[in-house]
Amino acid sequence: MNDTFLRACRGQKTEYTPVWLMRQAGRYLPEYQKVREKVDFLTLCKTPSLAAEVTIQPVDILKTDVAILFSDILIPVEAMGMKLEFSESKGPILYDPIRNDISVSRLRSIKPEEDVPFVMETIKILVGKLQVPLIGFSGAPFTLATYMIEGGSSKNFIATKRMMYQTPQLYAQLMEKITAVVIAYLQAQIDAGAHAVQIFDSWAGVLSPLDFERYALPYVKQLIASLRGDVPVIYFAFNAGSMLGLVKQSGAQVVGLDWRITLVDALGALGSDVAVQGNLDPCILFGTKELIKERVAGILKGASGAKGHIFNLGHGILPETPVENAIALVDAVHELSSR
Amino acid sequence: MNDTFLRACRGQKTEYTPVWLMRQAGRYLPEYQKVREKVDFLTLCKTPSLAAEVTIQPVDILKTDVAILFSDILIPVEAMGMKLEFSESKGPILYDPIRNDISVSRLRSIKPEEDVPFVMETIKILVGKLQVPLIGFSGAPFTLATYMIEGGSSKNFIATKRMMYQTPQLYAQLMEKITAVVIAYLQAQIDAGAHAVQIFDSWAGVLSPLDFERYALPYVKQLIASLRGDVPVIYFAFNAGSMLGLVKQSGAQVVGLDWRITLVDALGALGSDVAVQGNLDPCILFGTKELIKERVAGILKGASGAKGHIFNLGHGILPETPVENAIALVDAVHELSSR
Repeated sequence: MNDTFLRACRGQKTEYTPVWLMRQAGRYLPEYQKVREKVDFLTLCKTPSLAAEVTIQPVDILKTDVAILFSDILIPVEAMGMKLEFSESKGPILYDPIRNDISVSRLRSIKPEEDVPFVMETIKILVGKLQVPLIGFSGAPFTLATYMIEGGSSKNFIATKRMMYQTPQLYAQLMEKITAVVIAYLQAQIDAGAHAVQIFDSWAGVLSPLDFERYALPYVKQLIASLRGDVPVIYFAFNAGSMLGLVKQSGAQVVGLDWRITLVDALGALGSDVAVQGNLDPCILFGTKELIKERVAGILKGASGAKGHIFNLGHGILPETPVENAIALVDAVHELSSR
Repeated sequence: MNDTFLRACRGQKTEYTPVWLMRQAGRYLPEYQKVREKVDFLTLCKTPSLAAEVTIQPVDILKTDVAILFSDILIPVEAMGMKLEFSESKGPILYDPIRNDISVSRLRSIKPEEDVPFVMETIKILVGKLQVPLIGFSGAPFTLATYMIEGGSSKNFIATKRMMYQTPQLYAQLMEKITAVVIAYLQAQIDAGAHAVQIFDSWAGVLSPLDFERYALPYVKQLIASLRGDVPVIYFAFNAGSMLGLVKQSGAQVVGLDWRITLVDALGALGSDVAVQGNLDPCILFGTKELIKERVAGILKGASGAKGHIFNLGHGILPETPVENAIALVDAVHELSSR
């Protein structure tokens, strides 16, 4: 197996910088769209043979150094008892959002092997087929809580913050339930064979540093400390570039970075004992191949002081991205970093 | 006149910390809604007597130390020749977005006194009535460009970045036109009597530091350097907390901060030769009055090392905000900072 990615996570020497792209299995790939013509998004997540197929596609097409399980962060939330739907226009919808103690008490804990068996089945298929490591993943407790409290995506997260500020005990109760579920969910992915796991805290950046420290970080810390097995943990707190000192306290071996911060500044805040992942603006893939190469070179240079570096975008690849530019990006990372 | 705000901008001693709230003239106030029942949003912006009335409301109701002109950042864009509409659901819509050299060449330069006379008339009314200073404002060139290129609000700013990356000369041409307009527009506001101006770079945070430095900052610098008159300039680059070193290079006397960064960290990046404005999360106003007081105290403490500090939210006040909590905020700032 090509273990470049795992070695970079651990801060070990690699021949070149490993690369993958968040949402690399996705709508920008015609091969993915062909699978999606047959099934809706949730069915795809829940059908191991198909989920494995789309997981492998970008590894074959782009030659990335790692695969990431095709799934959705709300899969365990549905398993906790909330009704989930995906709307083309509004994104995810969770019915009966969590606003009071009755709705919190109704939430179920989960046994991943029984409640979301398709996830572990997909992982087992992939581990047998892939020549690169497989990343399992989950939403971070805070990010999952926002969807559950808001009932889907949100602009200002008023309901979430209202619960945090007005009924902190209820909020803590909810977060404890979610954290226990995420621990079980990620542990099951690790036990099924995932070589690393990534925790997506997509909405961490809507919090002030004080609120992040009080209402999000403790649960991520607990989650990471609870995971057993020798697998690297990547913590990606989106839009949290101005509070990386706190992000580091999560205990993750690898910190994901969005594109709003230079790697040099990020390393200054993080220090030299964690590896970093990132951080090209996904929109650079709408530029020319020369621009892509120039920006890759800049990021590689910025990362030269890091303990380990996994090249990635600073956010998910956009559906409108030309595939040839995604290929050019992976090629550029491999070529420029192996010199 | 209560000149506490102006003295804080200039880093002079004040008896207490001056405070105002971004969007303080807005939908959370029943008095504002009453005016809006009679006219639509754009008509309100363009009717000096009414615009002046809603500008004064929060000064009377909340006892803020400064007023900000009631207007919209797209007013000068409309004057440049783009058709503007406000949709309740989608926000601003600009028809025929700018995508090529023909549409750039069609954009008009403006003479503010002729093209948007209502703005200067509103300012003149206000300067005659207010007992506090008046802030004029404009969108920053980059932020205005995003609306013009995207045709309104955007999620990923693909069209804007595509123009930046694929046709940088066209982008530069557009930015030069916009910058000239903003210079004329702000200068006219200053000449009409505005005591300070704020430049809103609401979308600066979608850029990487490299792109901010290349595609946004030079135009802000040029704008600030071009303004004549002894008025403080506040530059508020939203979501740019991880590139404050660049933000400072704008030359603004006051740097606006959102809530994603602690004041201590912000001052570390900015140094001690600029004043700062901010930076309470607007959602704190959905908490209890005790929480508001606690957070105000924390921000005042964090700002103690600043050259000057104007208390503000880290973003516009939300329409759902209870008025009594906005009043409690202003009271808390005055009370706690005058001890």
